[in-house]
Amino acid sequence: MLTKPTLLLDKTKCLANIERMANKANKANVVFRPHFKTHQSAEVGNWFRNYDVDCITVSSIKMAVYFANNGWKDITIAFPANILEWATINELASRINVNIVVESLETIQYLEKQLTNPVGTYIKTDTGYGRTGIDAEDYDSMQQLLTTLKECKKLIFIGFLCHAGHTYSASSKEEVKQIMETSRQQLLALKTFYYADFPLMQLSYGDTPSCSMFDDFEGFDEIRPGNCVFYDQMQVNIGSCSQSDVAVALAAPVVSIHKKREEVIVHGGGVHLSKDSIVKNDITSFGSAFKLDGMQWDLDSPIGNVHKLSQEHGIIKVPSEMIEKVKIGDMIAILPIHSCLTANLMKEYSTTNNQKISMLF
Amino acid sequence: MLTKPTLLLDKTKCLANIERMANKANKANVVFRPHFKTHQSAEVGNWFRNYDVDCITVSSIKMAVYFANNGWKDITIAFPANILEWATINELASRINVNIVVESLETIQYLEKQLTNPVGTYIKTDTGYGRTGIDAEDYDSMQQLLTTLKECKKLIFIGFLCHAGHTYSASSKEEVKQIMETSRQQLLALKTFYYADFPLMQLSYGDTPSCSMFDDFEGFDEIRPGNCVFYDQMQVNIGSCSQSDVAVALAAPVVSIHKKREEVIVHGGGVHLSKDSIVKNDITSFGSAFKLDGMQWDLDSPIGNVHKLSQEHGIIKVPSEMIEKVKIGDMIAILPIHSCLTANLMKEYSTTNNQKISMLF
Repeated sequence: MLTKPTLLLDKTKCLANIERMANKANKANVVFRPHFKTHQSAEVGNWFRNYDVDCITVSSIKMAVYFANNGWKDITIAFPANILEWATINELASRINVNIVVESLETIQYLEKQLTNPVGTYIKTDTGYGRTGIDAEDYDSMQQLLTTLKECKKLIFIGFLCHAGHTYSASSKEEVKQIMETSRQQLLALKTFYYADFPLMQLSYGDTPSCSMFDDFEGFDEIRPGNCVFYDQMQVNIGSCSQSDVAVALAAPVVSIHKKREEVIVHGGGVHLSKDSIVKNDITSFGSAFKLDGMQWDLDSPIGNVHKLSQEHGIIKVPSEMIEKVKIGDMIAILPIHSCLTANLMKEYSTTNNQKISMLF
Repeated sequence: MLTKPTLLLDKTKCLANIERMANKANKANVVFRPHFKTHQSAEVGNWFRNYDVDCITVSSIKMAVYFANNGWKDITIAFPANILEWATINELASRINVNIVVESLETIQYLEKQLTNPVGTYIKTDTGYGRTGIDAEDYDSMQQLLTTLKECKKLIFIGFLCHAGHTYSASSKEEVKQIMETSRQQLLALKTFYYADFPLMQLSYGDTPSCSMFDDFEGFDEIRPGNCVFYDQMQVNIGSCSQSDVAVALAAPVVSIHKKREEVIVHGGGVHLSKDSIVKNDITSFGSAFKLDGMQWDLDSPIGNVHKLSQEHGIIKVPSEMIEKVKIGDMIAILPIHSCLTANLMKEYSTTNNQKISMLF
C-alpha cells in the first residue's frame, strides 16, 4: 500500500513511448541514441534493448560511468567536456566507446595531451538555442577547432551535435518545425562545407519536442530525444505528447484540506517534484493532480492544479465540487512538470505493478 | 583536488551560525529546537550538541527516523501528520519522544485510534502565512480540535506551533518585525484563552528570518529556525545574515566561456542548485558566483550572477572585465539561493578541510 511520496512508473506507457520513438528512427533510417538523463536507471535503460538500441546519450561523466558499469558500450556525453575529469574519461574510453562534446580550443588541446585512449568528438553546435556551443554560422570558430581536431590522435572528430532546446519555448507546432528546419539546414551546410576534409562526418540532433512532433529526420544521422521515455506536463503543454502518454506520476498523501480557500495540502513538495513550473493562461503550475486508483492514475478524474510548492508541501487548487470528494489520507497522483528533475529527486520508481526500480545515486 | 560539482561546507562559519542562534535562545530563555531539514546530516546535527541542543525539528517522518537512528531522543515532525504513516510514527514513539503536528479532526481521531504509544501534539497554527494550519483567529475550529484532543490518551496536546513563512516575502526588517509581533500576539491570545484547560501549554515559533533579525522571543517557549545553520542568498536578500555568514557553496567546473555575450557555462545546474531563484532589481538569480581559492570561496572576488539554469548547465553572467580572468577548467564557487534544496540534491558535503560528510539518502 502506498503511504508516502512515491514515484509511480507505468511500464506499459513507458514501453509504448520507447517503441514509438524507436520505430520512428528506424523508419527514417537514423540511429536512435536516446538520452538517459531522464530516467537515470539501469533497468529502464535495459527496456530500450528490446528495441535494438545499443548506443546512448548521457549528460554527465558520472552518468556515463553508471551506464558503462551496467553494460552500455557506446555512450555520448552530451555536455561540454570537463577537462578536470579527463582521467575518468580516459578510464571509460579504455573499456567502451566514449564520445565527448567540445566547443573550445583549450578543451581540445588539454584533452589531446592528457588522454591515452581515443574518444569520439563532436563539436557542440548552437543552432539558435543560445545556451552553449559554437554558433552554427560562425565558420571562423568552426574552422579553428577543426584545424586543431584534424591533427588530433586521441580526439577523433565525428561531426556536429546540436540540442535545439529552444523548441521548449515554442508557442506552436509550426514554430517547432521551423526550429528543426533551421537546425537541419545549418548542420547540413556545415557538413557540405567540411565534407572534403571529413567525408564520414555525422550530424547528431536531439530534443524531445521536435522528435516527437515530426518524423522527417532526413539529413540527420542520429536523434537523441530523452524526455520522451516518460514525457511530462511541460511536453503536454508544448504538444509533444498527450496526457495519456505521460508515464510517471508522483503519488502524494493528502495531509490537510482547506475547503474555504479550495486548497488541498499533500506531502509532495520541491524535494519531490522539483521547483520547475509552467505558466499557462497566467496560472502557474508545478504539476497536475489526478485521482489515484490503487497504483494507477485516472486521467478522467482531474483533481486540480499544484499552484504552490515549498520544500515538503504541495498546495493544490481544487474546485469546490471536487474538494468534497477528497479525504485526508487519500493518495493523489501528480503528473510532474519536468519528469527528468522529479526522477532525479526521487531516486527510485515503483511500477504500477509494485516493482521497485532503482536509479543512479 | 576538486574536479566536479561538489557542495563545500565551511565548518567554521557553520559553527558560528549555530553558536549565534544557540546563544540567542539561551539568553532569551527559550528552547532552541533547530530544524534539521536544511542539513539532513547526522554529523552536522552532532555539531549542535556542543551548544546544548538536545531536541530537534524535522519536516518528514523519514527524516525523523534517520535522526532517531542517529541518537536524537526528542523530535518534532513539523509537517501535518500523515495518517498513512501511523505505524512508523508509532514505532518511533516507542523509542524516543516524538511530537507531531495536527490540524484536522480526522487526523486526530484516526491517530488516536491507531497509536499505542503516546505522542506530543501541536496544533499547526496559521499566523498569516496562508500555507496550511488552522487560522490563529479561528477559535471555533481551535475549540473543536481541543475538545477532541482533551479526551485523547495517545495524542498529548502540547500547544500551538506556527511557521511565519511570510517573513520570506517581507520587503523590510520592519515588516519582518511586524509579522513576528502579530504571530506572537496571536499565539499568546490562544494561550490566554485556553490557559485554564491547558496550563502547561507551549508556544513554538520558527522561521530563520525573524529569529535571525531579532532577539526578543518573549512569550515563546521554543524557536525552530533551520536555514540559519548554512544561510543562503535568499536569506542575504531578506537581511537575515550577511554574505560572509553563508556556510555552503557549490563548487562547479567551468566548461565553456562565451565572451561576446559575457557568459560562463559551468557544470552546476538544476540537479545541483535546485531551480529556486530570487528576483532583485528585475534580475533573476539562481546563485552568486565567486572565485574559489582551493576549497575556500573569496567574497572579495565576485564573478557574476547565475542567471539561467538547465538540468546540468549553470549559465553565469560575467562582466567583461571579469570574464578575461576566468579560464576553462577553473572551479567556481556558487552561493546557492536556497541551501536546503541544494543540500537535498547534493547528498554529500566536503568541508573546506576536505572532509566528506554524508547525509540522509
